[in-house]
Amino acid sequence: MTDNAVEFNGQTITKGDLLYEGKAKQVFATSDPAILWMHYMDQVTALNGKVKEEYAGKGQLNSNISNRLFTYLASKGVTHHWLGSVSATDELVKKVDIIPLEVVTRNYTAGHFVSRFGVEPMQKLTPRVQELYYKSDELDDPFMNQSQAISLGFASEADLKTIFALADEVNELLVALFEQIDITLIDYKLEFGRLADGQIILADELSPDNMRLVDQKTGKSLDKDVFRQKQGDLRVGYQDVLERLEDVLK
Amino acid sequence: MTDNAVEFNGQTITKGDLLYEGKAKQVFATSDPAILWMHYMDQVTALNGKVKEEYAGKGQLNSNISNRLFTYLASKGVTHHWLGSVSATDELVKKVDIIPLEVVTRNYTAGHFVSRFGVEPMQKLTPRVQELYYKSDELDDPFMNQSQAISLGFASEADLKTIFALADEVNELLVALFEQIDITLIDYKLEFGRLADGQIILADELSPDNMRLVDQKTGKSLDKDVFRQKQGDLRVGYQDVLERLEDVLK
Ligand SMILES: Nc1ncnc2c1ncn2[C@@H]1O[C@H](COP(=O)(O)OP(=O)(O)O)[C@@H](O)[C@H]1O
Ligand SMILES: Nc1ncnc2c1ncn2[C@@H]1O[C@H](COP(=O)(O)OP(=O)(O)O)[C@@H](O)[C@H]1O
Ligand SMILES: [Mg+2]
Ligand SMILES: [Mg+2]
Repeated sequence: MTDNAVEFNGQTITKGDLLYEGKAKQVFATSDPAILWMHYMDQVTALNGKVKEEYAGKGQLNSNISNRLFTYLASKGVTHHWLGSVSATDELVKKVDIIPLEVVTRNYTAGHFVSRFGVEPMQKLTPRVQELYYKSDELDDPFMNQSQAISLGFASEADLKTIFALADEVNELLVALFEQIDITLIDYKLEFGRLADGQIILADELSPDNMRLVDQKTGKSLDKDVFRQKQGDLRVGYQDVLERLEDVLK
Repeated sequence: MTDNAVEFNGQTITKGDLLYEGKAKQVFATSDPAILWMHYMDQVTALNGKVKEEYAGKGQLNSNISNRLFTYLASKGVTHHWLGSVSATDELVKKVDIIPLEVVTRNYTAGHFVSRFGVEPMQKLTPRVQELYYKSDELDDPFMNQSQAISLGFASEADLKTIFALADEVNELLVALFEQIDITLIDYKLEFGRLADGQIILADELSPDNMRLVDQKTGKSLDKDVFRQKQGDLRVGYQDVLERLEDVLK
Protein backbone atom coordinates (compact mmCIF):
# COMPACT_ATOMS: atom_id res chain seq x y z
CA MET A 1 0.00 0.00 0.00
CA THR A 2 1.23 3.52 -0.78
CA ASP A 3 0.18 6.69 1.03
CA ASN A 4 -2.60 7.03 -1.52
CA ALA A 5 -4.17 3.60 -1.27
CA VAL A 6 -5.47 1.47 1.54
CA GLU A 7 -7.03 -1.94 1.97
CA PHE A 8 -10.58 -1.57 3.25
CA ASN A 9 -13.18 -4.34 3.61
CA GLY A 10 -11.20 -6.51 1.19
CA GLN A 11 -11.20 -3.71 -1.37
CA THR A 12 -8.37 -1.35 -2.35
CA ILE A 13 -9.41 2.27 -1.89
CA THR A 14 -7.33 4.78 -3.83
CA LYS A 15 -7.24 8.48 -3.03
CA GLY A 16 -8.58 10.64 -5.88
CA ASP A 17 -9.07 14.36 -6.59
CA LEU A 18 -9.21 17.01 -3.91
CA LEU A 19 -12.90 17.91 -3.80
CA TYR A 20 -12.82 20.56 -1.11
CA GLU A 21 -10.35 22.22 1.19
CA GLY A 22 -12.07 23.65 4.22
CA LYS A 23 -10.72 25.44 7.25
CA ALA A 24 -9.59 22.24 9.01
CA LYS A 25 -9.75 19.34 6.55
CA GLN A 26 -9.11 18.35 2.96
CA VAL A 27 -11.72 16.12 1.36
CA PHE A 28 -10.70 13.78 -1.48
CA ALA A 29 -12.70 11.54 -3.78
CA THR A 30 -11.73 7.85 -3.79
CA SER A 31 -11.97 4.92 -6.19
CA ASP A 32 -15.28 4.10 -4.47
CA PRO A 33 -17.91 6.74 -5.26
CA ALA A 34 -19.60 6.13 -1.88
CA ILE A 35 -16.40 6.78 0.09
CA LEU A 36 -14.44 9.98 0.77
CA TRP A 37 -10.88 10.37 2.07
CA MET A 38 -10.52 13.07 4.73
CA HIS A 39 -7.21 14.62 5.72
CA TYR A 40 -7.00 16.56 8.98
CA MET A 41 -4.78 19.62 8.57
CA ASP A 42 -2.63 21.30 11.22
CA GLN A 43 -4.22 24.64 10.45
CA VAL A 44 -6.31 26.35 13.15
CA THR A 45 -8.66 29.20 12.33
CA ALA A 46 -10.85 31.58 14.27
CA LEU A 47 -13.34 34.31 13.35
CA ASN A 48 -14.56 32.39 10.30
CA GLY A 49 -11.02 32.02 8.93
CA LYS A 50 -9.89 35.63 9.47
CA VAL A 51 -7.30 34.41 12.04
CA LYS A 52 -5.21 31.44 10.92
CA GLU A 53 -2.19 29.55 12.35
CA GLU A 54 -0.36 26.23 11.99
CA TYR A 55 0.14 23.86 14.93
CA ALA A 56 2.18 20.83 13.91
CA GLY A 57 0.41 17.72 15.15
CA LYS A 58 -3.00 19.33 15.63
CA GLY A 59 -4.52 17.41 12.72
CA GLN A 60 -3.32 14.16 14.21
CA LEU A 61 -4.78 14.98 17.63
CA ASN A 62 -8.17 15.88 16.13
CA SER A 63 -8.28 12.85 13.88
CA ASN A 64 -7.48 10.59 16.82
CA ILE A 65 -10.03 12.22 19.15
CA SER A 66 -12.67 12.23 16.43
CA ASN A 67 -12.14 8.55 15.62
CA ARG A 68 -12.45 7.58 19.27
CA LEU A 69 -15.62 9.60 19.74
CA PHE A 70 -17.25 8.21 16.58
CA THR A 71 -16.33 4.67 17.65
CA TYR A 72 -17.80 5.29 21.11
CA LEU A 73 -21.04 6.67 19.62
CA ALA A 74 -21.28 3.71 17.23
CA SER A 75 -20.95 1.31 20.16
CA LYS A 76 -24.02 3.04 21.61
CA GLY A 77 -26.01 2.73 18.39
CA VAL A 78 -25.44 6.10 16.72
CA THR A 79 -25.12 5.86 12.93
CA HIS A 80 -22.32 8.01 11.49
CA HIS A 81 -20.05 8.43 8.49
CA TRP A 82 -16.69 7.29 9.92
CA LEU A 83 -15.39 4.08 8.34
CA GLY A 84 -11.80 3.78 9.51
CA SER A 85 -8.39 5.40 9.81
CA VAL A 86 -5.89 5.37 6.93
CA SER A 87 -3.09 7.07 8.82
CA ALA A 88 -2.65 9.26 11.88
CA THR A 89 -4.24 12.18 10.04
CA ASP A 90 -6.38 10.54 7.37
CA GLU A 91 -9.63 8.61 7.42
CA LEU A 92 -12.28 7.12 5.19
CA VAL A 93 -15.87 8.23 5.58
CA LYS A 94 -19.17 7.47 3.92
CA LYS A 95 -19.89 10.18 1.41
CA VAL A 96 -23.05 12.11 2.28
CA ASP A 97 -24.86 15.15 0.96
CA ILE A 98 -24.06 17.52 3.79
CA ILE A 99 -27.11 19.37 5.09
CA PRO A 100 -25.80 22.95 5.16
CA LEU A 101 -26.72 23.48 8.80
CA GLU A 102 -24.44 23.51 11.80
CA VAL A 103 -26.31 21.91 14.68
CA VAL A 104 -25.15 23.39 17.97
CA THR A 105 -26.02 21.97 21.38
CA ARG A 106 -25.38 24.06 24.48
CA ASN A 107 -25.32 22.51 27.94
CA TYR A 108 -23.87 25.61 29.61
CA THR A 109 -23.86 29.28 28.60
CA ALA A 110 -20.73 30.49 26.80
CA GLY A 111 -19.53 32.53 23.85
CA HIS A 112 -22.05 34.28 21.64
CA PHE A 113 -24.95 32.98 23.70
CA VAL A 114 -23.70 35.05 26.64
CA SER A 115 -23.30 38.34 24.75
CA ARG A 116 -26.42 37.85 22.65
CA PHE A 117 -28.80 37.28 25.57
CA GLY A 118 -26.99 39.14 28.33
CA VAL A 119 -26.59 36.10 30.59
CA GLU A 120 -23.72 35.00 32.82
CA PRO A 121 -21.20 32.53 31.38
CA MET A 122 -20.95 28.91 32.57
CA GLN A 123 -24.57 28.68 33.72
CA LYS A 124 -26.22 25.30 33.25
CA LEU A 125 -28.95 25.38 30.60
CA THR A 126 -31.99 23.30 31.51
CA PRO A 127 -33.11 21.99 29.14
CA ARG A 128 -30.05 22.06 26.88
CA VAL A 129 -30.32 24.51 24.00
CA GLN A 130 -30.32 23.40 20.36
CA GLU A 131 -29.46 25.83 17.57
CA LEU A 132 -29.03 25.87 13.81
CA TYR A 133 -26.57 27.95 11.81
CA TYR A 134 -26.58 28.18 8.04
CA LYS A 135 -23.18 26.88 6.87
CA SER A 136 -22.11 29.79 4.65
CA ASP A 137 -18.67 31.36 4.90
CA GLU A 138 -19.78 34.38 2.82
CA LEU A 139 -22.69 35.08 5.17
CA ASP A 140 -20.64 34.30 8.30
CA ASP A 141 -22.71 31.23 9.27
CA PRO A 142 -25.85 33.10 10.29
CA PHE A 143 -27.97 31.79 13.16
CA MET A 144 -31.20 30.38 11.74
CA ASN A 145 -34.39 28.87 13.13
CA GLN A 146 -36.24 25.75 12.01
CA SER A 147 -38.98 27.67 10.22
CA GLN A 148 -36.38 29.52 8.14
CA ALA A 149 -34.48 26.32 7.36
CA ILE A 150 -37.69 24.69 6.17
CA SER A 151 -38.88 27.65 4.10
CA LEU A 152 -35.46 28.11 2.46
CA GLY A 153 -35.48 24.41 1.55
CA PHE A 154 -32.49 23.17 3.60
CA ALA A 155 -34.46 20.49 5.43
CA SER A 156 -38.02 19.34 5.92
CA GLU A 157 -39.82 19.40 9.24
CA ALA A 158 -39.33 15.63 9.45
CA ASP A 159 -35.59 15.97 8.69
CA LEU A 160 -35.19 18.50 11.49
CA LYS A 161 -37.04 16.23 13.90
CA THR A 162 -34.63 13.43 13.01
CA ILE A 163 -31.60 15.71 13.29
CA PHE A 164 -32.54 17.14 16.66
CA ALA A 165 -33.39 13.71 18.05
CA LEU A 166 -29.98 12.42 16.88
CA ALA A 167 -28.31 15.50 18.35
CA ASP A 168 -30.00 14.84 21.69
CA GLU A 169 -28.92 11.19 21.62
CA VAL A 170 -25.34 12.24 20.87
CA ASN A 171 -25.50 14.88 23.60
CA GLU A 172 -26.54 12.45 26.32
CA LEU A 173 -23.77 10.06 25.32
CA LEU A 174 -21.04 12.69 25.05
CA VAL A 175 -21.99 14.47 28.28
CA ALA A 176 -21.84 11.13 30.12
CA LEU A 177 -18.51 10.20 28.56
CA PHE A 178 -16.81 13.52 29.31
CA GLU A 179 -18.27 13.49 32.82
CA GLN A 180 -16.37 10.24 33.43
CA ILE A 181 -13.09 11.99 32.59
CA ASP A 182 -13.84 15.12 34.66
CA ILE A 183 -14.59 17.32 31.68
CA THR A 184 -17.68 19.48 31.24
CA LEU A 185 -19.05 19.54 27.71
CA ILE A 186 -20.17 23.17 27.46
CA ASP A 187 -21.29 23.30 23.83
CA TYR A 188 -20.37 21.91 20.40
CA LYS A 189 -21.28 21.75 16.73
CA LEU A 190 -22.43 18.73 14.74
CA GLU A 191 -23.04 18.27 11.04
CA PHE A 192 -25.43 15.81 9.46
CA GLY A 193 -25.71 14.49 5.93
CA ARG A 194 -27.86 12.30 3.75
CA LEU A 195 -26.74 8.95 2.38
CA ALA A 196 -27.76 8.00 -1.17
CA ASP A 197 -30.81 6.17 0.26
CA GLY A 198 -31.91 9.33 2.10
CA GLN A 199 -30.94 8.23 5.61
CA ILE A 200 -29.63 11.12 7.72
CA ILE A 201 -26.44 10.31 9.62
CA LEU A 202 -23.87 12.13 11.74
CA ALA A 203 -20.92 13.38 9.67
CA ASP A 204 -17.90 15.71 9.81
CA GLU A 205 -15.68 15.61 12.91
CA LEU A 206 -15.95 15.43 16.69
CA SER A 207 -12.99 17.31 18.09
CA PRO A 208 -11.96 20.17 20.40
CA ASP A 209 -11.97 22.38 17.28
CA ASN A 210 -15.76 22.26 17.44
CA MET A 211 -16.42 21.84 21.16
CA ARG A 212 -16.01 23.78 24.37
CA LEU A 213 -14.51 21.44 26.96
CA VAL A 214 -13.70 22.60 30.48
CA ASP A 215 -11.52 20.71 32.96
CA GLN A 216 -13.68 20.27 36.05
CA LYS A 217 -10.69 20.43 38.41
CA THR A 218 -8.83 23.46 37.05
CA GLY A 219 -11.66 25.25 35.22
CA LYS A 220 -9.33 25.54 32.23
CA SER A 221 -10.38 25.29 28.58
CA LEU A 222 -9.20 22.17 26.75
CA ASP A 223 -10.43 23.30 23.33
CA LYS A 224 -10.04 25.90 20.59
CA ASP A 225 -10.96 28.71 23.01
CA VAL A 226 -7.30 28.52 24.13
CA PHE A 227 -6.40 29.65 20.59
CA ARG A 228 -9.29 32.13 20.23
CA GLN A 229 -8.35 33.80 23.51
CA LYS A 230 -4.58 33.53 22.98
CA GLN A 231 -4.11 31.55 26.20
CA GLY A 232 -1.19 29.46 24.91
CA ASP A 233 -0.64 26.28 22.93
CA LEU A 234 -3.98 24.61 22.23
CA ARG A 235 -2.25 21.24 21.70
CA VAL A 236 -1.71 20.87 25.47
CA GLY A 237 -5.46 20.71 26.08
CA TYR A 238 -6.14 18.56 22.99
CA GLN A 239 -3.44 16.08 24.11
CA ASP A 240 -4.96 15.98 27.60
CA VAL A 241 -8.43 15.28 26.17
CA LEU A 242 -7.01 12.51 23.98
CA GLU A 243 -5.18 10.85 26.88
CA ARG A 244 -8.24 10.88 29.09
CA LEU A 245 -10.35 9.44 26.25
CA GLU A 246 -7.75 6.72 25.60
CA ASP A 247 -7.92 5.88 29.27
CA VAL A 248 -11.69 5.65 29.61
CA LEU A 249 -12.35 4.07 26.20
CA LYS A 250 -9.60 1.44 26.36
CA MET B 1 -66.79 62.33 31.34
CA THR B 2 -63.44 64.10 31.36
CA ASP B 3 -60.44 63.21 29.20
CA ASN B 4 -59.32 60.92 32.00
CA ALA B 5 -62.46 58.89 32.53
CA VAL B 6 -64.75 56.90 30.32
CA GLU B 7 -67.92 54.86 30.68
CA PHE B 8 -67.19 51.24 29.84
CA ASN B 9 -69.56 48.29 30.31
CA GLY B 10 -71.64 50.35 32.77
CA GLN B 11 -68.55 51.12 34.83
CA THR B 12 -66.52 54.35 35.00
CA ILE B 13 -62.90 53.70 34.10
CA THR B 14 -60.46 56.38 35.30
CA LYS B 15 -56.97 56.81 33.90
CA GLY B 16 -54.27 56.23 36.53
CA ASP B 17 -50.48 56.36 36.70
CA LEU B 18 -48.24 56.13 33.67
CA LEU B 19 -46.80 52.61 33.92
CA TYR B 20 -44.59 52.59 30.85
CA GLU B 21 -43.67 54.85 27.99
CA GLY B 22 -42.44 52.86 25.03
CA LYS B 23 -41.31 53.94 21.60
CA ALA B 24 -44.85 54.32 20.25
CA LYS B 25 -47.32 54.20 23.13
CA GLN B 26 -47.90 55.26 26.70
CA VAL B 27 -49.46 52.68 29.00
CA PHE B 28 -51.49 53.85 32.02
CA ALA B 29 -53.06 51.97 34.89
CA THR B 30 -56.83 52.46 35.38
CA SER B 31 -59.30 52.23 38.23
CA ASP B 32 -59.85 48.60 37.13
CA PRO B 33 -56.75 46.49 37.84
CA ALA B 34 -57.56 44.22 34.89
CA ILE B 35 -57.69 47.11 32.40
CA LEU B 36 -54.95 49.34 30.95
CA TRP B 37 -55.29 52.65 29.13
CA MET B 38 -53.10 52.93 26.04
CA HIS B 39 -52.22 56.20 24.36
CA TYR B 40 -50.81 56.13 20.83
CA MET B 41 -48.09 58.76 20.42
CA ASP B 42 -47.16 60.66 17.27
CA GLN B 43 -43.53 59.64 17.69
CA VAL B 44 -41.92 57.39 15.08
CA THR B 45 -38.65 55.59 15.75
CA ALA B 46 -36.24 53.44 13.77
CA LEU B 47 -33.06 51.52 14.60
CA ASN B 48 -34.36 50.58 18.07
CA GLY B 49 -35.07 54.23 18.97
CA LYS B 50 -31.78 55.70 17.70
CA VAL B 51 -33.72 57.64 15.01
CA LYS B 52 -36.79 59.48 16.29
CA GLU B 53 -39.30 61.96 14.77
CA GLU B 54 -42.79 63.38 15.39
CA TYR B 55 -45.59 63.08 12.84
CA ALA B 56 -48.74 64.89 14.03
CA GLY B 57 -51.70 62.56 13.58
CA LYS B 58 -49.63 59.33 13.32
CA GLY B 59 -50.89 58.07 16.71
CA GLN B 60 -54.47 58.58 15.60
CA LEU B 61 -53.92 56.71 12.33
CA ASN B 62 -52.31 53.74 14.12
CA SER B 63 -54.95 53.61 16.84
CA ASN B 64 -57.68 53.63 14.21
CA ILE B 65 -56.03 50.96 12.02
CA SER B 66 -55.23 48.79 15.05
CA ASN B 67 -58.80 48.98 16.36
CA ARG B 68 -60.20 47.97 13.00
CA LEU B 69 -57.81 45.04 12.65
CA PHE B 70 -58.48 43.78 16.20
CA THR B 71 -62.23 44.06 15.59
CA TYR B 72 -61.90 42.14 12.33
CA LEU B 73 -59.84 39.39 14.00
CA ALA B 74 -62.35 39.17 16.86
CA SER B 75 -65.16 38.70 14.33
CA LYS B 76 -63.19 35.68 13.08
CA GLY B 77 -62.75 34.22 16.55
CA VAL B 78 -59.30 35.48 17.56
CA THR B 79 -59.07 36.38 21.24
CA HIS B 80 -57.18 39.63 21.91
CA HIS B 81 -56.68 42.40 24.44
CA TRP B 82 -58.52 45.30 22.77
CA LEU B 83 -61.65 46.43 24.66
CA GLY B 84 -62.65 49.70 23.04
CA SER B 85 -61.63 53.19 22.03
CA VAL B 86 -61.62 56.07 24.47
CA SER B 87 -60.65 58.76 21.97
CA ALA B 88 -59.02 58.97 18.56
CA THR B 89 -55.67 58.10 20.12
CA ASP B 90 -56.57 56.23 23.29
CA GLU B 91 -57.97 52.79 24.01
CA LEU B 92 -58.70 50.37 26.79
CA VAL B 93 -57.11 46.93 26.73
CA LYS B 94 -57.12 43.86 28.94
CA LYS B 95 -54.02 43.92 31.07
CA VAL B 96 -51.76 40.95 30.35
CA ASP B 97 -48.33 39.80 31.39
CA ILE B 98 -46.53 40.41 28.14
CA ILE B 99 -44.42 37.45 27.00
CA PRO B 100 -41.13 39.21 26.17
CA LEU B 101 -40.99 37.78 22.65
CA GLU B 102 -41.72 39.52 19.39
CA VAL B 103 -43.40 37.01 17.11
CA VAL B 104 -42.60 37.81 13.49
CA THR B 105 -44.33 36.22 10.50
CA ARG B 106 -42.82 36.61 7.05
CA ASN B 107 -44.84 35.91 3.91
CA TYR B 108 -42.25 37.46 1.59
CA THR B 109 -38.52 38.12 1.98
CA ALA B 110 -37.58 41.63 3.10
CA GLY B 111 -35.36 43.57 5.46
CA HIS B 112 -32.93 41.69 7.71
CA PHE B 113 -34.04 38.34 6.30
CA VAL B 114 -32.63 39.36 2.92
CA SER B 115 -29.21 40.49 4.18
CA ARG B 116 -28.92 37.72 6.76
CA PHE B 117 -29.51 34.86 4.33
CA GLY B 118 -28.36 36.42 1.07
CA VAL B 119 -31.71 36.02 -0.69
CA GLU B 120 -33.55 38.32 -3.11
CA PRO B 121 -36.16 40.70 -1.64
CA MET B 122 -39.90 40.27 -2.26
CA GLN B 123 -39.73 36.52 -2.84
CA LYS B 124 -42.71 34.53 -1.60
CA LEU B 125 -41.84 32.30 1.35
CA THR B 126 -43.53 28.90 1.23
CA PRO B 127 -44.32 28.03 3.91
CA ARG B 128 -44.40 31.41 5.71
CA VAL B 129 -41.54 31.92 8.15
CA GLN B 130 -42.13 32.37 11.88
CA GLU B 131 -39.49 33.99 14.09
CA LEU B 132 -38.99 35.02 17.70
CA TYR B 133 -37.05 38.02 18.96
CA TYR B 134 -36.30 38.64 22.61
CA LYS B 135 -37.93 41.99 23.50
CA SER B 136 -34.95 43.78 25.04
CA ASP B 137 -33.98 47.32 24.07
CA GLU B 138 -30.57 46.97 25.76
CA LEU B 139 -29.75 43.84 23.76
CA ASP B 140 -31.27 45.23 20.53
CA ASP B 141 -34.10 42.64 20.38
CA PRO B 142 -31.91 39.65 19.51
CA PHE B 143 -33.27 36.94 17.22
CA MET B 144 -33.95 33.83 19.29
CA ASN B 145 -35.13 30.29 18.64
CA GLN B 146 -37.73 28.24 20.50
CA SER B 147 -35.17 26.12 22.31
CA GLN B 148 -33.47 29.25 23.68
CA ALA B 149 -36.80 30.81 24.69
CA ILE B 150 -37.73 27.64 26.57
CA SER B 151 -34.36 27.22 28.28
CA LEU B 152 -34.21 30.88 29.31
CA GLY B 153 -37.70 30.52 30.81
CA PHE B 154 -39.65 32.93 28.60
CA ALA B 155 -42.22 30.38 27.52
CA SER B 156 -42.88 26.66 27.74
CA GLU B 157 -43.00 24.36 24.74
CA ALA B 158 -46.80 24.31 25.08
CA ASP B 159 -46.94 28.13 25.24
CA LEU B 160 -44.92 28.39 22.03
CA LYS B 161 -47.20 25.90 20.31
CA THR B 162 -50.19 28.05 21.28
CA ILE B 163 -48.45 31.25 20.22
CA PHE B 164 -47.39 29.97 16.81
CA ALA B 165 -50.81 28.47 16.15
CA LEU B 166 -52.43 31.82 17.01
CA ALA B 167 -49.88 33.62 14.84
CA ASP B 168 -50.75 31.35 11.92
CA GLU B 169 -54.46 31.92 12.43
CA VAL B 170 -53.88 35.69 12.48
CA ASN B 171 -51.67 35.43 9.42
CA GLU B 172 -54.26 33.66 7.31
CA LEU B 173 -56.88 36.22 8.28
CA LEU B 174 -54.68 39.28 7.73
CA VAL B 175 -53.26 38.05 4.42
CA ALA B 176 -56.80 37.46 3.15
CA LEU B 177 -58.01 40.86 4.36
CA PHE B 178 -55.12 42.83 2.84
CA GLU B 179 -55.44 40.85 -0.38
CA GLN B 180 -58.99 42.20 -0.71
CA ILE B 181 -57.66 45.75 -0.64
CA ASP B 182 -54.77 45.09 -3.05
CA ILE B 183 -52.09 45.12 -0.38
CA THR B 184 -49.43 42.44 0.12
CA LEU B 185 -48.67 41.69 3.76
CA ILE B 186 -44.92 41.12 3.57
CA ASP B 187 -44.12 40.62 7.26
CA TYR B 188 -45.16 41.89 10.69
CA LYS B 189 -44.63 41.58 14.42
CA LEU B 190 -47.14 40.39 17.02
CA GLU B 191 -46.95 40.34 20.80
CA PHE B 192 -48.78 37.94 23.06
CA GLY B 193 -49.53 38.07 26.77
CA ARG B 194 -51.05 36.02 29.56
CA LEU B 195 -54.33 36.92 31.28
CA ALA B 196 -54.59 36.37 35.04
CA ASP B 197 -56.11 32.90 34.37
CA GLY B 198 -53.10 31.94 32.21
CA GLN B 199 -54.80 32.18 28.83
CA ILE B 200 -52.49 33.50 26.11
CA ILE B 201 -54.03 36.21 23.95
CA LEU B 202 -52.94 38.60 21.21
CA ALA B 203 -51.88 41.99 22.63
CA ASP B 204 -50.09 45.23 21.69
CA GLU B 205 -50.98 46.89 18.36
CA LEU B 206 -51.62 45.99 14.74
CA SER B 207 -50.44 48.90 12.65
CA PRO B 208 -48.12 49.89 9.79
CA ASP B 209 -45.52 50.69 12.49
CA ASN B 210 -45.08 46.91 12.87
CA MET B 211 -45.90 45.62 9.40
CA ARG B 212 -44.53 45.75 5.90
CA LEU B 213 -47.42 46.49 3.53
CA VAL B 214 -46.91 46.88 -0.21
CA ASP B 215 -49.43 48.35 -2.61
CA GLN B 216 -49.96 45.70 -5.27
CA LYS B 217 -50.61 48.27 -8.00
CA THR B 218 -47.72 50.70 -7.45
CA GLY B 219 -45.29 48.46 -5.55
CA LYS B 220 -44.93 51.26 -2.98
CA SER B 221 -44.51 50.77 0.75
CA LEU B 222 -47.48 51.82 2.88
CA ASP B 223 -45.71 51.32 6.20
CA LYS B 224 -42.85 52.49 8.41
CA ASP B 225 -40.28 51.55 5.72
CA VAL B 226 -41.19 54.94 4.14
CA PHE B 227 -39.71 56.54 7.27
CA ARG B 228 -36.80 54.08 7.64
CA GLN B 229 -35.78 54.68 4.05
CA LYS B 230 -36.53 58.42 4.09
CA GLN B 231 -39.00 58.10 1.20
CA GLY B 232 -41.30 60.90 2.37
CA ASP B 233 -44.23 61.34 4.74
CA LEU B 234 -45.24 57.98 6.17
CA ARG B 235 -48.73 59.31 6.99
CA VAL B 236 -49.71 59.20 3.30
CA GLY B 237 -49.39 55.39 3.27
CA TYR B 238 -50.96 54.95 6.71
CA GLN B 239 -53.94 57.09 5.64
CA ASP B 240 -54.30 55.04 2.46
CA VAL B 241 -54.26 51.78 4.45
CA LEU B 242 -56.87 53.16 6.85
CA GLU B 243 -59.18 54.27 4.03
CA ARG B 244 -59.00 50.92 2.30
CA LEU B 245 -59.68 49.12 5.59
CA GLU B 246 -62.67 51.42 6.30
CA ASP B 247 -63.96 50.57 2.90
CA VAL B 248 -63.65 46.79 3.11
CA LEU B 249 -64.61 46.48 6.79
CA LYS B 250 -67.64 48.82 6.69
N1 LIG C 1 -19.25 12.39 5.12
C1 LIG C 1 -19.11 13.53 4.45
N2 LIG C 1 -19.44 13.61 3.14
C2 LIG C 1 -19.31 14.78 2.46
N3 LIG C 1 -18.84 15.91 3.01
C3 LIG C 1 -18.53 15.90 4.32
C4 LIG C 1 -18.64 14.72 5.10
N4 LIG C 1 -18.26 15.02 6.37
C5 LIG C 1 -17.93 16.33 6.37
N5 LIG C 1 -18.07 16.87 5.14
C6 LIG C 1 -17.77 18.26 4.73
O1 LIG C 1 -16.38 18.31 4.47
C7 LIG C 1 -15.84 19.56 4.84
C8 LIG C 1 -14.79 19.34 5.91
O2 LIG C 1 -13.83 20.32 5.87
P1 LIG C 1 -13.70 21.46 6.98
O3 LIG C 1 -12.29 21.92 6.94
O4 LIG C 1 -14.30 21.04 8.28
O5 LIG C 1 -14.67 22.54 6.28
P2 LIG C 1 -15.30 23.91 6.78
O6 LIG C 1 -14.23 24.96 6.70
O7 LIG C 1 -16.41 24.13 5.79
O8 LIG C 1 -15.78 23.65 8.18
C9 LIG C 1 -17.01 20.38 5.40
O9 LIG C 1 -17.55 21.21 4.39
C10 LIG C 1 -18.01 19.30 5.79
O10 LIG C 1 -19.35 19.80 5.75
N1 LIG D 1 -52.48 44.23 26.97
C1 LIG D 1 -51.28 44.62 27.42
N2 LIG D 1 -50.96 44.51 28.75
C2 LIG D 1 -49.75 44.92 29.20
N3 LIG D 1 -48.79 45.43 28.42
C3 LIG D 1 -49.03 45.54 27.09
C4 LIG D 1 -50.26 45.14 26.53
N4 LIG D 1 -50.21 45.34 25.19
C5 LIG D 1 -48.98 45.84 24.93
N5 LIG D 1 -48.26 45.97 26.07
C6 LIG D 1 -46.90 46.51 26.21
O1 LIG D 1 -47.02 47.92 26.28
C7 LIG D 1 -45.93 48.55 25.61
C8 LIG D 1 -46.46 49.39 24.48
O2 LIG D 1 -45.62 50.46 24.21
P1 LIG D 1 -44.68 50.54 22.92
O3 LIG D 1 -44.44 51.99 22.69
O4 LIG D 1 -45.21 49.71 21.80
O5 LIG D 1 -43.40 49.84 23.57
P2 LIG D 1 -42.02 49.33 22.95
O6 LIG D 1 -41.17 50.54 22.72
O7 LIG D 1 -41.52 48.43 24.04
O8 LIG D 1 -42.40 48.59 21.69
C9 LIG D 1 -45.05 47.43 25.12
O9 LIG D 1 -44.02 47.18 26.05
C10 LIG D 1 -45.99 46.25 25.05
O10 LIG D 1 -45.31 45.00 25.21
MG1 LIG E 1 -15.53 22.20 9.57
MG1 LIG F 1 -44.06 48.42 20.52
